[in-house]
Amino acid sequence: AESFADDLPAEAIVSDVGSSKQSVAEALKASLPGALIIPAHPVAGTEKSGPSAGFETLFDGRWCILTPPAGAPENAVERLAIFWQSLGADVELMDAKHHDLVLAVTSHLPHLIAYTMVGVADDLSRVTDSEVIKYSAAGFRDFTRIAASDPTMWRDVFLNNKEATLEILGRFTEELFVLQRAIREGNGEHLHDYFTRTRSIRRSIIEAGQDTAAPNFGRTSSTKP
Amino acid sequence: AESFADDLPAEAIVSDVGSSKQSVAEALKASLPGALIIPAHPVAGTEKSGPSAGFETLFDGRWCILTPPAGAPENAVERLAIFWQSLGADVELMDAKHHDLVLAVTSHLPHLIAYTMVGVADDLSRVTDSEVIKYSAAGFRDFTRIAASDPTMWRDVFLNNKEATLEILGRFTEELFVLQRAIREGNGEHLHDYFTRTRSIRRSIIEAGQDTAAPNFGRTSSTKP
Repeated sequence: AESFADDLPAEAIVSDVGSSKQSVAEALKASLPGALIIPAHPVAGTEKSGPSAGFETLFDGRWCILTPPAGAPENAVERLAIFWQSLGADVELMDAKHHDLVLAVTSHLPHLIAYTMVGVADDLSRVTDSEVIKYSAAGFRDFTRIAASDPTMWRDVFLNNKEATLEILGRFTEELFVLQRAIREGNGEHLHDYFTRTRSIRRSIIEAGQDTAAPNFGRTSSTKP
Repeated sequence: AESFADDLPAEAIVSDVGSSKQSVAEALKASLPGALIIPAHPVAGTEKSGPSAGFETLFDGRWCILTPPAGAPENAVERLAIFWQSLGADVELMDAKHHDLVLAVTSHLPHLIAYTMVGVADDLSRVTDSEVIKYSAAGFRDFTRIAASDPTMWRDVFLNNKEATLEILGRFTEELFVLQRAIREGNGEHLHDYFTRTRSIRRSIIEAGQDTAAPNFGRTSSTKP
């Protein structure tokens, strides 16, 4: 941002497409004092990255979250919203801090956990790689898809959304320890109640059109050649 | 098993289709002393359960693991293997204890973690359910699919595969704490190295025909109506 600070037209809107917003807003503000900065996060994409991973319908019906700072001119926010809508996205406005917490839950922590689970499998010398791979269809392969995402991007996400990630991580390990104790004590009722509660969220996600109701995401039973 | 113990023909092979094998083998042995017991685990299925969730190609090209006890007659193991092969499955033999460890890694822990992550999202009062649902495409929705699996079946899995689940869970939280510290300390190199290592497992799973290489499991960009 510093490199183009001197050439920036007065009426320009500076925006970005990063996954965390508070740290980006602060960094841009420091590098471009006086500029009109409206951070944006298109919540779209797959586990593949780079220009060649793009496709025509990438933003169709996906959300793009704008996090305008307090006092940002309404017409500037509107201009950026129209830009994203013209690419096919639905636009939402959100406070940057709240954005970072929401995305820590829906994206950042799921990625951290998936990376960890795949790492554990890789470490376990008593379970060979070939066994892990052979029987991956039983849940594990969905984690490996998430954990195949770009390492550089995800390093930067965690370094830039430290606060919210650590908070949600604390809650996650706390709940996991309660379930661990239930398993150790053989408390089937607690496990059953917990596993029942989480089903309704799945239904809501399908109703909201964020995923398919077909089992296995509509994958056929076997993807073997 | 006790209910049919008296009517069991001498040459009968007793088998099952459960997800954990040591505890099943012990329970069957206690209920059917002297019977020929060969536990089996067809690693197939989706997040849906019950008879109506079955389909013709359910076992096609999927693994079925048999865990015959030491000294089980070879021809009986062969008969059961042929039964599963005739349903389309590929058969593998494994020690029951090793089976339980392998499946704890590839299936049981991924499910426990997915249930926990969805539970955390549901608990978080500062992030509304509607926000979690809206932005679920960013990783979270894959967890909700796993966490929509049958609560009764999964309660029984964890009660019956307690030892291996607790062992893998211990390793998982240990690794997660190391990553947590790296995030807290801003150790980007550690994060990047860790996230890089896990990518090769994904490639192997695709090469083994256990999943599709298409981004997003071949889902289109938007599944919205």
